[in-house]
Amino acid sequence: MNGNGPRGNGTPIRVALLGCGTVGGEVVRLLNEQADELAARIGAPVELAGVAVRRPHKHPELPEGLLTTDAAALIGRTDVDVVVEVIGGIEPARTLLLEALKSGKSVVTANKMLLAEDGATLAEAADASGADLYYEASVAGAIPLLRPLRESLAGDRITRVAGIVNGTTNFILSAMTASGAGYADALEEATRLGYAEADPSADVDGYDAASKAAILASLAFHTRVTAADVHCEGIRGVTAADIAAAAALDCTIKLLAICERVPGGPQGDPESVSARVYPAIIPRSHPLAAVDGAFNAVFVEAEAAGQLMFYGQGAGGAPTASAVLGDLVAVARNLVVGGRGPRESSYASLPVRPMGAVSTRYHVSLEVADRAGVLASIAGEFARKGVSIAAVRQTGGGQIPLNGESEDEARLVVVTHGAPDAALAATVEALSGLDAVRGVDSVLRVEDLGRSVSALGVPG
Amino acid sequence: MNGNGPRGNGTPIRVALLGCGTVGGEVVRLLNEQADELAARIGAPVELAGVAVRRPHKHPELPEGLLTTDAAALIGRTDVDVVVEVIGGIEPARTLLLEALKSGKSVVTANKMLLAEDGATLAEAADASGADLYYEASVAGAIPLLRPLRESLAGDRITRVAGIVNGTTNFILSAMTASGAGYADALEEATRLGYAEADPSADVDGYDAASKAAILASLAFHTRVTAADVHCEGIRGVTAADIAAAAALDCTIKLLAICERVPGGPQGDPESVSARVYPAIIPRSHPLAAVDGAFNAVFVEAEAAGQLMFYGQGAGGAPTASAVLGDLVAVARNLVVGGRGPRESSYASLPVRPMGAVSTRYHVSLEVADRAGVLASIAGEFARKGVSIAAVRQTGGGQIPLNGESEDEARLVVVTHGAPDAALAATVEALSGLDAVRGVDSVLRVEDLGRSVSALGVPG
Repeated sequence: MNGNGPRGNGTPIRVALLGCGTVGGEVVRLLNEQADELAARIGAPVELAGVAVRRPHKHPELPEGLLTTDAAALIGRTDVDVVVEVIGGIEPARTLLLEALKSGKSVVTANKMLLAEDGATLAEAADASGADLYYEASVAGAIPLLRPLRESLAGDRITRVAGIVNGTTNFILSAMTASGAGYADALEEATRLGYAEADPSADVDGYDAASKAAILASLAFHTRVTAADVHCEGIRGVTAADIAAAAALDCTIKLLAICERVPGGPQGDPESVSARVYPAIIPRSHPLAAVDGAFNAVFVEAEAAGQLMFYGQGAGGAPTASAVLGDLVAVARNLVVGGRGPRESSYASLPVRPMGAVSTRYHVSLEVADRAGVLASIAGEFARKGVSIAAVRQTGGGQIPLNGESEDEARLVVVTHGAPDAALAATVEALSGLDAVRGVDSVLRVEDLGRSVSALGVPG
Repeated sequence: MNGNGPRGNGTPIRVALLGCGTVGGEVVRLLNEQADELAARIGAPVELAGVAVRRPHKHPELPEGLLTTDAAALIGRTDVDVVVEVIGGIEPARTLLLEALKSGKSVVTANKMLLAEDGATLAEAADASGADLYYEASVAGAIPLLRPLRESLAGDRITRVAGIVNGTTNFILSAMTASGAGYADALEEATRLGYAEADPSADVDGYDAASKAAILASLAFHTRVTAADVHCEGIRGVTAADIAAAAALDCTIKLLAICERVPGGPQGDPESVSARVYPAIIPRSHPLAAVDGAFNAVFVEAEAAGQLMFYGQGAGGAPTASAVLGDLVAVARNLVVGGRGPRESSYASLPVRPMGAVSTRYHVSLEVADRAGVLASIAGEFARKGVSIAAVRQTGGGQIPLNGESEDEARLVVVTHGAPDAALAATVEALSGLDAVRGVDSVLRVEDLGRSVSALGVPG
C-alpha cells in the first residue's frame, strides 16, 4: 500500500521545511541539537533538504544553500521524503501539501485552519498515495492529544471532548477573574505581554478555537466536521459583571471548545455530533477551572476510560516544535520500516447537530422592575417556551415583591435546566418584549461537564 | 521486517485472551459491544479465538468452545494473530508471552510486574520476530501515557516524569489529608471500600509504583531500568503528624514515582537516570497536589514541550480494558497494513544513579531538648555533613532559647536545600547521637517539581 517501501536503517530522511518563523526556527534548532538522539530513535539520520521562506536575507542563521523562495520546487525535488509545513493559512499551504501528498511525500503540519477547512481532501490524498499525514501541533501545541484520541482511545467510545484550546483568551479570562478587570483592560495587558496579537480577532472571536474543535470532533467521533460546522462565539461580550456572577455561584468562565456525541432521539433522530465554542460557566471544582493563564487543557470522556485530562502549553515556538518533531519522528520511522501510521477514519459519517437543537443550561441576567408579579410573568415566559428554571436569584433592589408596591429596578439571575438553544433564544426574545423587563444583560451557557451541579443552585 | 506481511482488509484478526478476571471480562464485553466500530477503525473484524482461564466453570457468560485451561496450546494455534495477556505476575506470563512473540504473534499486555522485571527480554523477542509489543495498560490504567512518551515526545528530550501512579495509596493519603485520620484508619477505610486488597503490601509498600517507575523511566529516557533499579519506600510510615506538618507549609504528601535525567557532573560523572518511589511533600499549588482519591496523574517535563500533565483513572476493569483495546486496535491495524509499531529504544544505556547520590530536599522532624545551644549543635551537624538548611521552625515547647534556662521538650522542623541522600542519612545518624536530640520523628523528602519553592520557607 505504501509506495515508499522500507528503506532500511541508515539512509537519511530528507526534510523540506516550509516556513521558518517562530515554530520553524525551533524545528531547525531541535533538529540540529538533537540530531544524534533523533537518528538513534528513528534508525536513520534526519537532514534538512531545504527551507522555503519569503525573505531569505532574514535568515542568516541558515546555510544559504538550504534557503529558497520557491516552495513548490522544493517539494518537487526527488531527494525530499517529508514535508513539514509551518506557514499556516489556507493558501498556498493547501496546494503545496496536496502536491506533496500526491507524490507520496509524507506531511507534518501545524496548520489548524487548513485542516479544519479541508482536512478531508488532505486525508484522501494521503490515503491515495500511501503517505502519512500528521498534525499533532495543530491543536493544543505541545500537549499530546491527537495521537491519544486517534490511537490510545481507538478501542473506546469517546462521548465528549471539552477543552481550553486558546491560550490568548484563557489569559484574558484568567486576568479578568484574578483582578476583576474588564475585557478591554485585560485584552490590553495580554497585548502588552505578547499573548494577544495586534489584531486579536482570530483568538477573541473564537475562530482559532473553532478550527481546533473541528479537528478534535473529527478525530474523536470518526466523522468529518469542518470549521463551518462549529457554532462559534467569542469572549468580547464577557463583562466583569459576568465573571462576578459566575464567582457568586462558585464557578468561573472559560472559553471552551466542546465536542459531544449526541445519542439518537426517541423520535428516530439519528445519532449526531455537536461542535461548539463559547464562553461557558463551569464549576470551580472542575479540573478545567484551575487551568489559568496561557495554558491549555483538554478534558476527554470515554465510555470505558472515564474522565481524562491533558494539560500543558498550547502555543509558543518550542512547545509547538516539540509536537512537530514528535510527528516527524513517527513519519521517519514509518519510512525506515516501510509502514505507515494509522489512518484517521470517517466511517461514522455522523450529522452535525444544528446549534438550535443543542441543549445546554443557561445563566440569564435581567434588569427588571422591582414590583409585584414580575417574577410570575418572567417565569411564565420561560415555561411557555419549555425552558425549565433551576434557580432564581435577585441581586440589587429589594426582595422581589410578589404583591408589593415598590417600583425600583432589580437584577434577576435565572439559571435554567438543559434546554435547546432555540428555545432559550425564543425565551430571551419574549422576555425582551415584557414591560417588566428593562433589559437582558447577559446570557451565558453553563456547562456541568459531567460534574455535580448542586453548586449551581441558589447560594445563600 | 515483519513476518506477518500485509493481510489486507477483511480477514479477521484472531485474538487469544489470557485471563478473564475484572479486566479480561471488560475486554470481552467491549470487543462484543463495539465489534462494528472496531472493525471499521481497523479495516477488519476482531474475533476471540479463545480465552485461557483457570476455572472454566466460573465463566458461564462465555461460549464453552472459547474456554480453555491450556494457555500454551491456545497461543500455539495457527489461527491466533494477537495474544492479550491480563493474568499478571511473572510466570507463567513470561513463558507464554515469549512463546507468542517468538512465533511472530503480537502481544498486548497489562503486566507491569513482568515488564518492569524483564521487559528487555520481551522487547528483544518482539524485535527478532517483527511482532508488536504494546503495554499501555500497565501504567496508569486508562490514561494515554506510554504512547505519548514513546511517540508524541519522541522528538523532544524528556527531563522528568513524576506521577501518582498508584490509586490505593493516593486514596489513603487523600483520606488522611481530608480527615486527619491516621494511616491505619485510612487503610481500613480503603480496604472496606475495595480500594485496597486484603494484603495491601504491593500497593502500600510502593512495589506497584516502583514497577511503573521502571517502565516510565525506560521509555522516557530510552534506556533500560528494571524494578530492582528503583529506590522504593512506601507509605506505612506516614503519620497524621506528617500530613499536618506538610499542611503547615501549604503542602501535601503524595506517593510519587519519580524518574529524572541527571546531567553529567563537572568531575566527569556520566549522565544518568534516577528512578525512585517515596511519599513526598509537594506544594499545594502544584497540579499533582489536587489529584485526590483513586485517580492517577503523571507530570512530564521536556526541554521543548515544557510541563505536561496527564490525568485520569489509573485502575478498574473498564478503564484498564480501554487501554488494552487501544493497543489491540493499533496492533490489528499494523497487521492489516503489514507494518509494525515504533520500537522502544534503549540506545541511551544510561547508568542508574544510586539513591545515595540522588539529591533531594528534606523535611526533618526532631524531638529536642528545649534549652540553650540546641539549635547551634543541630545546625552544626547539618553543616558538617554538607547539608544546607533552608528553614527551621519550632513547634511545641517555648521559643528555642539560644541561651536560656528551660529544659522542656520541643519539636523542631528543619527543611533543607537539595542534598545527596547519603549526606542526609549521615546527618540523621549524627543527630540521633546528640544528647539534645530525643528522637528523629520523621524524615520526608520535599519535591518542588519545577515549581517555586518559596512556600516551603518558614510560615508566620
